[in-house]
Amino acid sequence: MGQHSVAEGKGTDGVIGIDGVPFAKGHGAGNDFVILPDPDGALPLTAAQVAALCDRRRGIGGDGLLRVVRSAKHPDAVAMAGEAEWFMDYWNADGTQAEMCGNGVRVFARYLIESGLVGWPSGDLRVATRSGVVPVRDDAAGLAAGLAPPRLGGPATAAVAGRELDGVAVDCGNPHLVCALPDAEDPAVLDLTAAPTLDPETFPTGANVEFVAAAEPVDGADLSVRMRVHERGVGETLSCGSGACAVAAAALADTGRDTGVVAVHVPGGRLTVTVADEACWLAGPAVIVAAGVVHLG
Amino acid sequence: MGQHSVAEGKGTDGVIGIDGVPFAKGHGAGNDFVILPDPDGALPLTAAQVAALCDRRRGIGGDGLLRVVRSAKHPDAVAMAGEAEWFMDYWNADGTQAEMCGNGVRVFARYLIESGLVGWPSGDLRVATRSGVVPVRDDAAGLAAGLAPPRLGGPATAAVAGRELDGVAVDCGNPHLVCALPDAEDPAVLDLTAAPTLDPETFPTGANVEFVAAAEPVDGADLSVRMRVHERGVGETLSCGSGACAVAAAALADTGRDTGVVAVHVPGGRLTVTVADEACWLAGPAVIVAAGVVHLG
Repeated sequence: MGQHSVAEGKGTDGVIGIDGVPFAKGHGAGNDFVILPDPDGALPLTAAQVAALCDRRRGIGGDGLLRVVRSAKHPDAVAMAGEAEWFMDYWNADGTQAEMCGNGVRVFARYLIESGLVGWPSGDLRVATRSGVVPVRDDAAGLAAGLAPPRLGGPATAAVAGRELDGVAVDCGNPHLVCALPDAEDPAVLDLTAAPTLDPETFPTGANVEFVAAAEPVDGADLSVRMRVHERGVGETLSCGSGACAVAAAALADTGRDTGVVAVHVPGGRLTVTVADEACWLAGPAVIVAAGVVHLG
Repeated sequence: MGQHSVAEGKGTDGVIGIDGVPFAKGHGAGNDFVILPDPDGALPLTAAQVAALCDRRRGIGGDGLLRVVRSAKHPDAVAMAGEAEWFMDYWNADGTQAEMCGNGVRVFARYLIESGLVGWPSGDLRVATRSGVVPVRDDAAGLAAGLAPPRLGGPATAAVAGRELDGVAVDCGNPHLVCALPDAEDPAVLDLTAAPTLDPETFPTGANVEFVAAAEPVDGADLSVRMRVHERGVGETLSCGSGACAVAAAALADTGRDTGVVAVHVPGGRLTVTVADEACWLAGPAVIVAAGVVHLG
């Protein structure tokens, strides 16, 4: 594991030297990540270290952690090494590993470019994940990740703040329930401090629940909606990539379409979802805000 | 304003270069701060930039920001320059300026030492603040800051989660209400999601409200208590330095003492408060966890 110091000139300009590992912090429409470059997969990263790094007060803070490892150097990705040079080793903030994160892969791609680890290829940039290889492209709506197309399920309901709301189940690899609010009610007024109650037969492992209303039209989009999301096990978040994809698919289905472009306004910004036959493209801002060295406890 | 890059070797090891300013992040018992070294006071820092840096998802994140400026270089501190070389230019997370922060000055002192900007003097390290010069010493309980002694006021009540609790007003430069819980009730069970309601005549500008119960004895302390705190305008925090001082003074007064040592267990760790005639010493952990370069929007 490389030990780096930010400053050689300690004592001259107040820049501090830290014994630790390089990190960066970035976010995609308010969904934020600690990024750990570890090209050779040499960092013996533990769940406790990931949780400490993602702790917002005692660490750097993030919704999750993205370790940047060469696919050839990680057992979960070596089979993809011929197709995608870099592997997004994704961890949740609580130190558990997860398969995929739509905004995470967009921020990961931004990091690869800005760090100089890759240049844009002639076609899509391909990122290895535990859910397979994900293509990323730079389009007018920001960095776009090609995710699995959402699959619509049947009707279901959610009880939230004493009300029963109708919705539709959507499978984006993880389970969602998309509830259209009645009469264009503003999602901003909903009380999401408590988790919505779901039918355990339809959602045996819970679900992310999205609350949706129509929004002002956006140039280039077939539909425009606002949403808020309650993520299972987390609470309300500023942005949920798979939730935006679920909402887009449900909104298109409501108007009799299987494919199309939907502008999805989330509390953290605006995402653009393009539902196509072969993929669901999630696009939006993805920025790196800071980089340095962090103490690894 | 200096523009720095973390890495010269861009592209070789995945360490990213950021155009921005140097920063560090540290915390004192879970009370966390963005630290900006700016020895010459050359950074034209705006309220919006402070709020963006303290944003936990789109910035670095912190309860507040500590700018590190030579006293001689800042108009608010130049009169103290002969007594204290460095000025803690303290900002709240919302971009407003504040006079003092007990945990902030402890983390500030840690930064001065670790960055090499100062070595420990033969006596106390002296930090200029908008509340005057604050002495800091390294003692067995961690870094200790000598704050103004709390002044006890009269009885008052707080309504919280449908209950009325008796307390005592304490002035630590900022207003506090310390409520001892009845029958050693555990502070952990209190619902502090809503702000306590206070008597507006006693607290015309609001107050921080502390909820206190006895705790197991601690070696070297006269008293040991647990507390939770609801800070006005903020909500519950993991640690509040002036709140710990207020709680210590009230607990000592309950046992007929004006001075003494009180171990104060806060959700973020343990603070040790030594109430003496001339000062109230707030001691505890103060650590720098990361340093680097952050984009300044």
